Amino acid sequence: MKIEKLTKHAFSRFGDVVEMEDAQHYTINQGFAERFNDLAKIDVAIDGGAVNLAIFTAQPRPKPIVIHLMERHPLGTQLFYPLQDEDWLVLVCDDPLHVETFHLFRATGKQGVNYGRSIWHHPLLVHAKSRFLIVDRKGPGNNLEEMTLPFNLQI
Amino acid sequence: MKIEKLTKHAFSRFGDVVEMEDAQHYTINQGFAERFNDLAKIDVAIDGGAVNLAIFTAQPRPKPIVIHLMERHPLGTQLFYPLQDEDWLVLVCDDPLHVETFHLFRATGKQGVNYGRSIWHHPLLVHAKSRFLIVDRKGPGNNLEEMTLPFNLQI
Repeated sequence: MKIEKLTKHAFSRFGDVVEMEDAQHYTINQGFAERFNDLAKIDVAIDGGAVNLAIFTAQPRPKPIVIHLMERHPLGTQLFYPLQDEDWLVLVCDDPLHVETFHLFRATGKQGVNYGRSIWHHPLLVHAKSRFLIVDRKGPGNNLEEMTLPFNLQI
Repeated sequence: MKIEKLTKHAFSRFGDVVEMEDAQHYTINQGFAERFNDLAKIDVAIDGGAVNLAIFTAQPRPKPIVIHLMERHPLGTQLFYPLQDEDWLVLVCDDPLHVETFHLFRATGKQGVNYGRSIWHHPLLVHAKSRFLIVDRKGPGNNLEEMTLPFNLQI
């Protein structure tokens, strides 16, 4: 499957790319820090939701990676930011029943993503054992939908 | 100034220590990831506030570091998580006018902090140029108070 470079433009209908590049920034802390501001639209408050701050540890999958299912969260955005400076993969689609709607992006170790509500995505795809900081939703309601693919997809 | 080890217990009245240690966790993603869940109480919604997701780049200060002021955010929590695996320093106090209320903690590169609302703290103190992921508040109102110390404090 073709791997695309992760850019704000290419990813725009799936969510935010969380990165310093092209971000609004200004100097703070008496000149000793720079703030790159407002990098993601966190949207988790619907139906009594609140922010859940978590850390995921992820393991690489056996290669070639066979994609069996996609998931989405109808009640909240979900943000992933890498805690090591290593590339990782981001797989999203418009419709899990249609393989031509899938997009695979290579993210750098200085790029996170914030999946929009109800955006189909694959769980973490990493090249080595990795840690990620997560900002998503806690609260009532069913916030996880999974769909098994009706075709074979290897990446 | 004495440097204390950063632990949830020692830091409890100032906010959350964001770390995997002693956190509730469970397996997700078909066995390929572990979720360390609900690591911080994000409290930014007062008076029309929303989550601001930011990245700070911080520079080390000249040594010995002279502490001139402390700051606090009355309208929201402020979370810092390091994006490199390097120790950093966390300076907090109950009252900036009373030196005996100050605490200096050594955080590891796998420990973040989430300062509670109105908790006095010093801006980022790092040993080398560093990046941090920030979860704090955007919205109306004055969310920054600063106080100049009436005594000399070096760390």
